[in-house]
Amino acid sequence: MTAQELDGAGEAGSSRSVVDRALAILGTFQGGRVRQSLSELSRRSGIPVATAYRIVRRLSDWGALERDDDGRYRIGLRLWEVASLAPRSMGLQRVARPYMQDLYETTHCSVQLAIREGSELVSIERFQHPRQARHRPRVGGRYALHATAIGLVLLAHAPEDVRQEVLAGELRRYTRHTCVDPAELVRVLADVRQRGYALADRTVDLDYVSVAAPVVGPDGSVVAALSLVVKHAEGSAPLLVHPVRVTAMAIGRALRDPGLLTPDVWS
Amino acid sequence: MTAQELDGAGEAGSSRSVVDRALAILGTFQGGRVRQSLSELSRRSGIPVATAYRIVRRLSDWGALERDDDGRYRIGLRLWEVASLAPRSMGLQRVARPYMQDLYETTHCSVQLAIREGSELVSIERFQHPRQARHRPRVGGRYALHATAIGLVLLAHAPEDVRQEVLAGELRRYTRHTCVDPAELVRVLADVRQRGYALADRTVDLDYVSVAAPVVGPDGSVVAALSLVVKHAEGSAPLLVHPVRVTAMAIGRALRDPGLLTPDVWS
Repeated sequence: MTAQELDGAGEAGSSRSVVDRALAILGTFQGGRVRQSLSELSRRSGIPVATAYRIVRRLSDWGALERDDDGRYRIGLRLWEVASLAPRSMGLQRVARPYMQDLYETTHCSVQLAIREGSELVSIERFQHPRQARHRPRVGGRYALHATAIGLVLLAHAPEDVRQEVLAGELRRYTRHTCVDPAELVRVLADVRQRGYALADRTVDLDYVSVAAPVVGPDGSVVAALSLVVKHAEGSAPLLVHPVRVTAMAIGRALRDPGLLTPDVWS
Repeated sequence: MTAQELDGAGEAGSSRSVVDRALAILGTFQGGRVRQSLSELSRRSGIPVATAYRIVRRLSDWGALERDDDGRYRIGLRLWEVASLAPRSMGLQRVARPYMQDLYETTHCSVQLAIREGSELVSIERFQHPRQARHRPRVGGRYALHATAIGLVLLAHAPEDVRQEVLAGELRRYTRHTCVDPAELVRVLADVRQRGYALADRTVDLDYVSVAAPVVGPDGSVVAALSLVVKHAEGSAPLLVHPVRVTAMAIGRALRDPGLLTPDVWS
C-alpha cells in the first residue's frame, strides 16, 4: 500500500459517519417532502444544525441539493441526472415504455410498472389518463403490497420470508374491500400465482379496479409487475386481463431477448 | 452551542473532503457508464482504492450504490427514489406529461422536453416512437445546445453570457447541415426568438428533422423547450410547427395556473 493509499484509508476510516450523515440528509427527502429548511433537514436527520449546514453546503456546491429563493433546499438536478442511470429502474423503464405506451393508446386506461423493494413496491413508470390523475402512485414512490393488483402480483412472487413478513405486519384497510386477513391473503396470493394475474376491485378507493400481471426476467424470476386501472363503474376490468397479460409477457420477452431491443437500451 | 453540536461541527469541518469524495464517486456515473468496478470508480474519481472502497461500502449500505453479481457497482434504487423528488425535473415532468402524451398520440412522432443546465441541455422527458428509438436522447442525458431544434430554442432564450460562452466554445459539426459558424448562429438564434420556434433539418444525423418551441414559466422566462422529431423523408416538419407551439404554450399555461393542475402535481 502506498503512502497516499494509507493516508486516504485513514481519512475515510475516521470519517465513516460523515458519508452516513450526508446520506441521512438526502434520505429526509421522501414522500411529499420536496423542499425543506435547514432546521427541518437537521431535525429529521438527527444531525446538529451546525454540522448539517456544513454538509448541506458541500452537497449544494456539487449540485446534489439546490437552494430555493426562500432559502429552503430541494434535490438538485445533478443528483437526478446521476440517479437516472440506476439500472434497476432505467433498464426496465426503457424496455417497458414502448409496450406501456401501446397499451395506454389501445385502452386509454392508466398503465403502471412497479418492482418490489423489500416489503413495499416502488412505482417505476406510468402512463396516466389525465382524468384519473388524483391519488395515483407517483413514479419513485413506495406503496404497500397487499392492497393493489400490482402489489398482489409482486407479493405473490416474493420470497417466502418477505411474504411472511408482510402477512405478519400491519395490513392497512383502505376500503371495506381491502383484504386484511392474513389467511385469506394467503389464498388470494396462491390464486394470483395459479391464474397468472391479479384483480383488485375497489381495494384502495371505491372508484377504481386494477388488473396486474407479472413480468418475468431473463433468469425466470418475476422482476416487475404491470397494471391497468379502470373505473369500477365501467365494468370493463375483466376485459383488460388479456391485454395486461400479453403486454407483461411482451416486456418479459424483450428483457430476455436483447435482440428485440434497440441498441441503446442497455448502454 | 452544545457539546454535541461542537462535536458535530468539528467532525464535519475535518471531513469536508469526505462528502466531496463520496459525491465524486457518484459523479463518475455519467454518459453510458452504468456499471463500474471499484478500480474504475477509484481511477475516474481520483480517489485511492482503499479510500474509495470504504466510501463505496457506506454508499452501498445505504442503497446509493448496488453491487452486481459480477462485483461491479451501479446506482442504487434508493438514490433513484430520493432523486425522483428533484423539483426542477419532477415538477415539469408531471405537468408536461399529459400534454406530451396527447401530442404523441396525435402525431406519432417522438416528443421531447428539455431544460438548459449551464451550456448544455438536459433531457427531462420523452415519448418516443419505437421505430425512432436509435440514437435518440436519453432522459437524464446532457447534450450540446447548438445542434438540435430543442437546443436552439433553449440557447436563443439563454442569458447573454451563456450564449457568448457557447458561441465561443467548440461547436461540433454532426452533419454537413449543422450550423457551426458563430456569426450565422447569432442570426439563427435571433430568428428563433422572433418566430417563436426552431426547425433543425438533418443537423444531428441525415435522417431526421426536429421542430421545437419554448415553454414559458410563471415568471415569464423560458423554463424548458418542447420538440417533435420526424423523418426528413416524410417532409411533414413544417406541418408540425403549430402542434408543437400550441402544446408548449399549453404546458406553460398549466405551469402558470396551478388551478389547471391536479392537486398532487406540486405536492
